[in-house]
Amino acid sequence: MKVLREKIQDEGIVLSDGVLKVDSFLNHQIDPYLMKEIGSEFARLFKAEGITKIVTIESSGISPAVFAGLELGVKVIFARKKKSLTLTDNLLVSSVYSFTKQEENTITVSSQFITESDRVLIIDDFLANGEAAKGLIEIVKKAGASVIGIGIVIEKSFQKGAEELKDLGYRVESLARIKSLTDGKVRFVEDQVEVRV
Amino acid sequence: MKVLREKIQDEGIVLSDGVLKVDSFLNHQIDPYLMKEIGSEFARLFKAEGITKIVTIESSGISPAVFAGLELGVKVIFARKKKSLTLTDNLLVSSVYSFTKQEENTITVSSQFITESDRVLIIDDFLANGEAAKGLIEIVKKAGASVIGIGIVIEKSFQKGAEELKDLGYRVESLARIKSLTDGKVRFVEDQVEVRV
Repeated sequence: MKVLREKIQDEGIVLSDGVLKVDSFLNHQIDPYLMKEIGSEFARLFKAEGITKIVTIESSGISPAVFAGLELGVKVIFARKKKSLTLTDNLLVSSVYSFTKQEENTITVSSQFITESDRVLIIDDFLANGEAAKGLIEIVKKAGASVIGIGIVIEKSFQKGAEELKDLGYRVESLARIKSLTDGKVRFVEDQVEVRV
Repeated sequence: MKVLREKIQDEGIVLSDGVLKVDSFLNHQIDPYLMKEIGSEFARLFKAEGITKIVTIESSGISPAVFAGLELGVKVIFARKKKSLTLTDNLLVSSVYSFTKQEENTITVSSQFITESDRVLIIDDFLANGEAAKGLIEIVKKAGASVIGIGIVIEKSFQKGAEELKDLGYRVESLARIKSLTDGKVRFVEDQVEVRV
């Protein structure tokens, strides 16, 4: 997605060889117009799949997920990283390690919102080692539902998550795929492809 | 906002005289179509105010805020409740007590995203004692910007937040105002008004 790659080049800050900061439009400040375009792109990619529900994780996955949900005409569930007093029902639980926050999170989804007949699209902001995505897959499976695909805003293709998920048979659609962050520069997998063409 | 009151009556669960659970469309599962309508209503209410930025707080404020931001043509910032490794800049900090989660949260916004010339609309999902709203006001003020208004999805009018904020001179626009939750029933301030008419 060209507009996203350009935004990352213009506004992304490379903190280290492994960490890209996109706080100006995705992870802290949100650009609603870009989020709408991202949501539309996810909807376009998965519109033929009969998606009945989107599952994401708080907080940065919510914006892209709601715009995709609006366009696909389905509801969005965000997994919680912390238990709320009002989240008291039968819970689907999984454990996710966050490298960015250096902590283990128990993520939870109330079982009443995912049924066995659901065809679920998982959406998240980043895909690195795939911890969050695998946690969400585990939750969807515990509900007896089907994971139809995984939509990612920014994939760090130099980490193992995308490949592992594809090896497990999942369709992964990442709107920007980062090949490397070395020397403080963002290089996209897509750049390479374009050069070859 | 009639469609919101109807949704609360249909799907809201009264957990106690003080706690309303709306996990089916706002706080856990999200109804994107309703969120779009809510965002449009905030935009309509504040469109004459020259809003330049929306500030909300993760996680449930994000959906209504991004739709309002899209329609007002402004960016949205969500305050973080927990420090991220990638949130390393000069931080605007405030302390907020959550009665729902029974804990004190330090909320943070990176100072680079709010400037002195900003005219800020604060948006949040619930207004009860006003703790979150006051924390967000403190952060906006620390940035030297102006709080133009406060948009709330569901106001618990029987708690002190709304009145206190209005006494402080803020314009508070709540799309549903709950008069009481006694006897397991949701009664709206708006119901009373309609009976009189």
